[in-house]
Amino acid sequence: MTDAASSSGQRLHVPIALRWGDLDAFNHVNNTSMLKLLEEARVRAFWGAEHGEEVPTTAVLRPGPAGGQLMLIARQEIEYLAPVPYRRDPLDIQLWFSSFGGSSVEVSYEVFSPAGAEPQTLYARAKSVVVMVDAATGKPTRLTDEMRGAWSPYAGPAVAMGQRR
Amino acid sequence: MTDAASSSGQRLHVPIALRWGDLDAFNHVNNTSMLKLLEEARVRAFWGAEHGEEVPTTAVLRPGPAGGQLMLIARQEIEYLAPVPYRRDPLDIQLWFSSFGGSSVEVSYEVFSPAGAEPQTLYARAKSVVVMVDAATGKPTRLTDEMRGAWSPYAGPAVAMGQRR
Amino acid sequence: MTDAASSSGQRLHVPIALRWGDLDAFNHVNNTSMLKLLEEARVRAFWGAEHGEEVPTTAVLRPGPAGGQLMLIARQEIEYLAPVPYRRDPLDIQLWFSSFGGSSVEVSYEVFSPAGAEPQTLYARAKSVVVMVDAATGKPTRLTDEMRGAWSPYAGPAVAMGQRR
Amino acid sequence: MTDAASSSGQRLHVPIALRWGDLDAFNHVNNTSMLKLLEEARVRAFWGAEHGEEVPTTAVLRPGPAGGQLMLIARQEIEYLAPVPYRRDPLDIQLWFSSFGGSSVEVSYEVFSPAGAEPQTLYARAKSVVVMVDAATGKPTRLTDEMRGAWSPYAGPAVAMGQRR
Repeated sequence: MTDAASSSGQRLHVPIALRWGDLDAFNHVNNTSMLKLLEEARVRAFWGAEHGEEVPTTAVLRPGPAGGQLMLIARQEIEYLAPVPYRRDPLDIQLWFSSFGGSSVEVSYEVFSPAGAEPQTLYARAKSVVVMVDAATGKPTRLTDEMRGAWSPYAGPAVAMGQRR
Repeated sequence: MTDAASSSGQRLHVPIALRWGDLDAFNHVNNTSMLKLLEEARVRAFWGAEHGEEVPTTAVLRPGPAGGQLMLIARQEIEYLAPVPYRRDPLDIQLWFSSFGGSSVEVSYEVFSPAGAEPQTLYARAKSVVVMVDAATGKPTRLTDEMRGAWSPYAGPAVAMGQRR
Repeated sequence: MTDAASSSGQRLHVPIALRWGDLDAFNHVNNTSMLKLLEEARVRAFWGAEHGEEVPTTAVLRPGPAGGQLMLIARQEIEYLAPVPYRRDPLDIQLWFSSFGGSSVEVSYEVFSPAGAEPQTLYARAKSVVVMVDAATGKPTRLTDEMRGAWSPYAGPAVAMGQRR
Repeated sequence: MTDAASSSGQRLHVPIALRWGDLDAFNHVNNTSMLKLLEEARVRAFWGAEHGEEVPTTAVLRPGPAGGQLMLIARQEIEYLAPVPYRRDPLDIQLWFSSFGGSSVEVSYEVFSPAGAEPQTLYARAKSVVVMVDAATGKPTRLTDEMRGAWSPYAGPAVAMGQRR
């Protein structure tokens, strides 16, 4: 992959509500639940509207089994910075494109406590390499001009993951 | 349990967002995911605010491992009326109290497609018997006057479950 | 549905391993996880082998999106009798057919602590109405003679669900 | 963290059964379900027996809310190499210790198709940084000599994660 040529620093903010069922027996959001939240943020950020809903300008995909197109995760990296308690207000999942390849993108994320209550707590940082795949053949398909056009305003450098301990 | 003495017919409407991860390999919301949605509706309907959020008047419990009080499910019954596809807008989960016992309540539910788009589709009907339990001793505890007072405006007859086939 | 004509009382015993992730913040197997365990027991009891594995004689279905056949849950009822802790040994899920309809069956279950350690604890009782559906048309399909033949040795009366409190 | 001083190359083999519910609407094991499988492999590899079960020699922890000790995931990295279909036989999850810190370890994994059927397919590679935490104070606690002694036979170099595309 080549790095994004331009970097506006713009981020998509996707509000995703926790569920009490995301907690595990330690009474914190489970490490795998956090990736479920990222998955839902991607779906809401990238999949087009099917029922006339208002969607972000990045929502240009027609995936799902009937859409002809799959988004496969090739690789994922996540760093948990603080335990996440259950709360009603949706988390503020911020995401952007940290790399564009021929048939894949790298998505960077920062997961924050709910927007509106300052200061926000940064709960996690993550990166996913997402590959576009043709549902019928299982082969990667090239990013279209529509995708690049819709996504490039949200290009930025990859989230910095540090060693914390 | 005795039937609710009065029956206002009022229902709580709890909007609960689907996640794409609720679907199973048949591309519909999985039968167990539907019960996860009901669980989240109960939490949002009955648990008190912890961060100053706006909550319904029925939200009088202080549960969770630290709250001293558990809500245990003793029994559950659910009828699936139509397959539920993924969509962004939250489902309209309607719930009410169909019976009050000494230390338990029966909650009735109807799960509808998102509010606002008429006509709504009825996806499922369900009932749960929920028992209040002391977290330390594991014994049932009696419903308090506060609970009865907060919940009785939403008393009504049990949801009618029919044989569909 | 008509009741099963004959009742041998035979039960299938399906061992299903818990996962620590089935627990919720109360440190017990979550009420919805229990239905996940029943789902897995059905899959292992009814779906045919795809890789030459040894399977029970009841495993005659070819479902899954590619199998042309779906098993839809129309209705489910479950009673939780005791909290289930995490443990390594698989639960002993016992199931049988409590009713045969034209295109559906009712499955009854009792969920026990692991086989081998007597006395076993009965954790839950449940019943599911499962409808066979053609994947292409979405219409119910009739039970075949092969299904009836494979399943009738495991016919028995419906599990008795009692009011516990 | 310092690299493991010695490297025997020994791996723990933890058989973990899939569930059909691990699949998503694309009919493959979901990317987050794979991490659920790794979580269960860790629990079975590291947690001591509570009911006299046979456990590996690495099972020296007493975690869980009552055990006084939590295993928190600080960081996780996973690479998905091939889609995983549902199958009955348990996956062969191989894991070892790729680094020992003062209060943490890095666990490396390779997830293979079921043992016994050669050649095995490598489905995923992953690494987790796991921190031991005191449940009461929430502070990291130092690895004990017992842990180091039990785990060092399974020390080895970190799994090599490559860029696949």
